[in-house]
Amino acid sequence: MPHLTYPELHALLAATLRAGGYNEAHAAAIAEVLARAERDQCRSHGIYRLTGILKSRRAGQNHGDREPTIDNPPERAILKIDAHGEFSPLAFARGAPLLAEKARRYGIAAMAINHCLHLSALWPEVETLAGLGVGALAMCPSSAYVAPAGGNAPLLGTNPLAFAWPNGDAPPYVYDFATSVAARGEIELHRLDGKTLPDGWGIDADGAPSRDPAAVLAGALLPFGGHKGSAISTMIEILAAVWIGDNLSSESSEADGGLAPNHGTLHIALDPVAFAAKDRLAHADKLLAAIRAQGARLPSERRYAARAAAAKEGIAISQENLDRLQRMQQGDLDLELH
Amino acid sequence: MPHLTYPELHALLAATLRAGGYNEAHAAAIAEVLARAERDQCRSHGIYRLTGILKSRRAGQNHGDREPTIDNPPERAILKIDAHGEFSPLAFARGAPLLAEKARRYGIAAMAINHCLHLSALWPEVETLAGLGVGALAMCPSSAYVAPAGGNAPLLGTNPLAFAWPNGDAPPYVYDFATSVAARGEIELHRLDGKTLPDGWGIDADGAPSRDPAAVLAGALLPFGGHKGSAISTMIEILAAVWIGDNLSSESSEADGGLAPNHGTLHIALDPVAFAAKDRLAHADKLLAAIRAQGARLPSERRYAARAAAAKEGIAISQENLDRLQRMQQGDLDLELH
Repeated sequence: MPHLTYPELHALLAATLRAGGYNEAHAAAIAEVLARAERDQCRSHGIYRLTGILKSRRAGQNHGDREPTIDNPPERAILKIDAHGEFSPLAFARGAPLLAEKARRYGIAAMAINHCLHLSALWPEVETLAGLGVGALAMCPSSAYVAPAGGNAPLLGTNPLAFAWPNGDAPPYVYDFATSVAARGEIELHRLDGKTLPDGWGIDADGAPSRDPAAVLAGALLPFGGHKGSAISTMIEILAAVWIGDNLSSESSEADGGLAPNHGTLHIALDPVAFAAKDRLAHADKLLAAIRAQGARLPSERRYAARAAAAKEGIAISQENLDRLQRMQQGDLDLELH
Repeated sequence: MPHLTYPELHALLAATLRAGGYNEAHAAAIAEVLARAERDQCRSHGIYRLTGILKSRRAGQNHGDREPTIDNPPERAILKIDAHGEFSPLAFARGAPLLAEKARRYGIAAMAINHCLHLSALWPEVETLAGLGVGALAMCPSSAYVAPAGGNAPLLGTNPLAFAWPNGDAPPYVYDFATSVAARGEIELHRLDGKTLPDGWGIDADGAPSRDPAAVLAGALLPFGGHKGSAISTMIEILAAVWIGDNLSSESSEADGGLAPNHGTLHIALDPVAFAAKDRLAHADKLLAAIRAQGARLPSERRYAARAAAAKEGIAISQENLDRLQRMQQGDLDLELH
């Protein structure tokens, strides 16, 4: 299988996005989140998403060339970006350094990105902020696929929550997960494989617990951790939709026309030395070392291992995907990647 | 059973705390969190905690009369309070209005309370902040009773997480839960009742899953929601211990001498209209109404129902507890309440 360096993969994806109508800045920003996911073997957020992104452009769901508008009041610890209906990565790339600067100035700061299409995982975003030297929380609604605990119909999104904490020269502590028990894609995979679901993943259209993937796809997923996960998911709707003045998951579902979900995202950044001296940060190491000493895995270890392997051996891309990317650049934009 | 009004119960508890060596300000603040919990039928954080609070004072774990020191830099969105080893309620009561003011000024703000003994639930704190017109997140470590997901020994605390969002004239949306599957007290109750535990609550001292409450008390509780809850609990250690420069749960356990846990707490407050116009807040109502319309319970509904009943009928206190509170005021401080 061919192996590409990260810059090679990024250049290839950016060229394909430009061929599909995205301007230089958007193509570079979107290519970055896809290439980072592919490099870290998070394939569910990797290059296979390209086809949908190109389709969204051609269907007129976005323009592919609108520069985000930044409202950055210097006397406030908040920052507001209007993405004008484009995919979120460029708005995030423009805002992240401003948010980190704001967090350092005020101790804590929040950034809303409004009116964006969303495709990326949140870990690249919180990891970018950690790379800028600040702690970060990120969350967003999605589409209404999840019933609240005790409920019987889809209302909440799979509402991801992510967190990063810089850890000196070591990679940051990072988690990023859906607040549903499983992602919708996992239900779909069970359906395609003819497998029944584990208990507790979803309910059917009548609100009854079901292990049939097709019934759950027609019904609703359930939040992780019962009423606790449901409460967190509800909070994400409140903070990353109501607070920032953007779509709830239920509103995003109505608006997306089967293309990419349209909603906002919220990032909160924290100055690691806002409260305590720098040497205090070693206590995070102490905690993480104690977790590892028990043989427990830290949330991003698998990604970091994949990244280390990619740095050494390159990023494996199938010959078929490489060929298709070439053809997509020549205008055959509907091809699927795997 | 005798019924007291809220002011009667508060006055009775405050008098007992003063008899036990707490000054006027600390007695009033501690009595408030106990009375609010008893009123809302959150008995696990109610008046039965009084005996331990009095014991902590007599054992010299706190002084009962130290005024918190407030470091409130006007140009930063943070606020730092040193509780000087006292119980946290007075420090919180002093800080909450300053934090709310700061959130309104900057859009978002954070408050650390350091070097406090902790006994209260977090919902009274986030509810107080919501009453001051701001959204609020609160979290703290506790004592090391919980193993990380995939681990085999206690390291994390039961690390509660709480959130409140003001909701116009209606009561705020509030959740508050331990990030362990169950509270340690629930394991203890199973042991006393001779019952086995549900699957997944804990592990024994060898790290093996166990349904024997005694074995789990000698081993460790588990986080809620598997690796996701474990990641959130780890984040709480990072934010509410490392970030604010205070004890991890494992350090708190070493320091508490079997009395109250000694650690910090973190509160983050949010100006509801920082990003969007006031009329946008109605979308929270829309969301919560849609949850209720499915027959799903909102996290604080049970407490609010108990509170409404208490406003009408008073707060039921057993004659035995009333008698004991009288005797405690006369110096018989070791009596247990139920």
